[in-house]
Amino acid sequence: MAQNAKPDKRRRILDAAVEVFAQNGFYNSKVSQIARAASVADGTIYLYFKSKEDILLSVFVDSMDEIIGRQLDALQGVVGAIDQLSTFIRVHFQSVGQSSALAEVITVELRQSAKFMRNTDMSAFGRYLAIIARIIGDGQDEGVFVRDLNNRRVARMLFGALDELALEWAMGQRLTSLDEACAQTLRVFVQGLLPRA
Amino acid sequence: MAQNAKPDKRRRILDAAVEVFAQNGFYNSKVSQIARAASVADGTIYLYFKSKEDILLSVFVDSMDEIIGRQLDALQGVVGAIDQLSTFIRVHFQSVGQSSALAEVITVELRQSAKFMRNTDMSAFGRYLAIIARIIGDGQDEGVFVRDLNNRRVARMLFGALDELALEWAMGQRLTSLDEACAQTLRVFVQGLLPRA
Repeated sequence: MAQNAKPDKRRRILDAAVEVFAQNGFYNSKVSQIARAASVADGTIYLYFKSKEDILLSVFVDSMDEIIGRQLDALQGVVGAIDQLSTFIRVHFQSVGQSSALAEVITVELRQSAKFMRNTDMSAFGRYLAIIARIIGDGQDEGVFVRDLNNRRVARMLFGALDELALEWAMGQRLTSLDEACAQTLRVFVQGLLPRA
Repeated sequence: MAQNAKPDKRRRILDAAVEVFAQNGFYNSKVSQIARAASVADGTIYLYFKSKEDILLSVFVDSMDEIIGRQLDALQGVVGAIDQLSTFIRVHFQSVGQSSALAEVITVELRQSAKFMRNTDMSAFGRYLAIIARIIGDGQDEGVFVRDLNNRRVARMLFGALDELALEWAMGQRLTSLDEACAQTLRVFVQGLLPRA
């Protein structure tokens, strides 16, 4: 990950945490390893984060905030549900493709940890799903997509497909490019949502 | 894996492990907790399994063997790729629906642990994906499904969708029934694979 001339210390800790978590897994990672990788003192970490769990959650929330922002920017001005869905899928894979370590932390570590963080704020994930559900719902209202599908269910299904292809890519089984994954997901889901001819 | 005289005890340990892993997570679970839940002595566990990792892997391999057997039985005699895909999706959700603890262990714990078990035998997952890929490939050969899709990529995509809906269900967010998830997944993927009208 690129380091700015004067990188924000919180940001530097989070970037280091992504690398450490991806390499060792969340449970085997130590706060002291993150401190070393970020070139800060152990105690400095606790000025920014309560715990290792808090670091993982912050990696996730920050990343989701960024990708949600990117999605909303990209979707602005895109007309029609099919083109919106296409944009969403492309931006998802582009975001994932920027860092396989980050993709691994989000697809693997977070899933494992989510059950231990049921009381914490996982609403970023909900907001992300809501964007997909909104696009599909708009398409249904426009009469472009079939109405007898539950848009929230399909949103979750599409997220699962995207996440699995991202996982395959992040875990180094790069049998395909993210471009191919993008084109094929779009092909299946757009046609899958059209009314029967 | 030690395969010894008393399969009932081995089975009992694995069933207990599923409950313990689902409740505490793999990393926070202790072999002694599994022993207690299975009503066996701690040392007995090591007659059957090398380690906690070996138990998790055995839970997975046994479960995959069982569901693969169930899929192959169910698919036998089903004619045509669309009906085969329909059968596969139904059997997947039926299998998941038998135990939310098992579903949770497979969808959450295994994903986390897979990266630490890269050298161990994960071929059961590959065999499961291969069944989906074979059905789609057959459909392409029959001219029922569109040819310009990579059947292995779509297999992974479909698995991701199934897995995400199963995860949602297993984690207790039962906003939908598995029956609805089944019908909607089938609707999206079958039509998504048809040639354009």
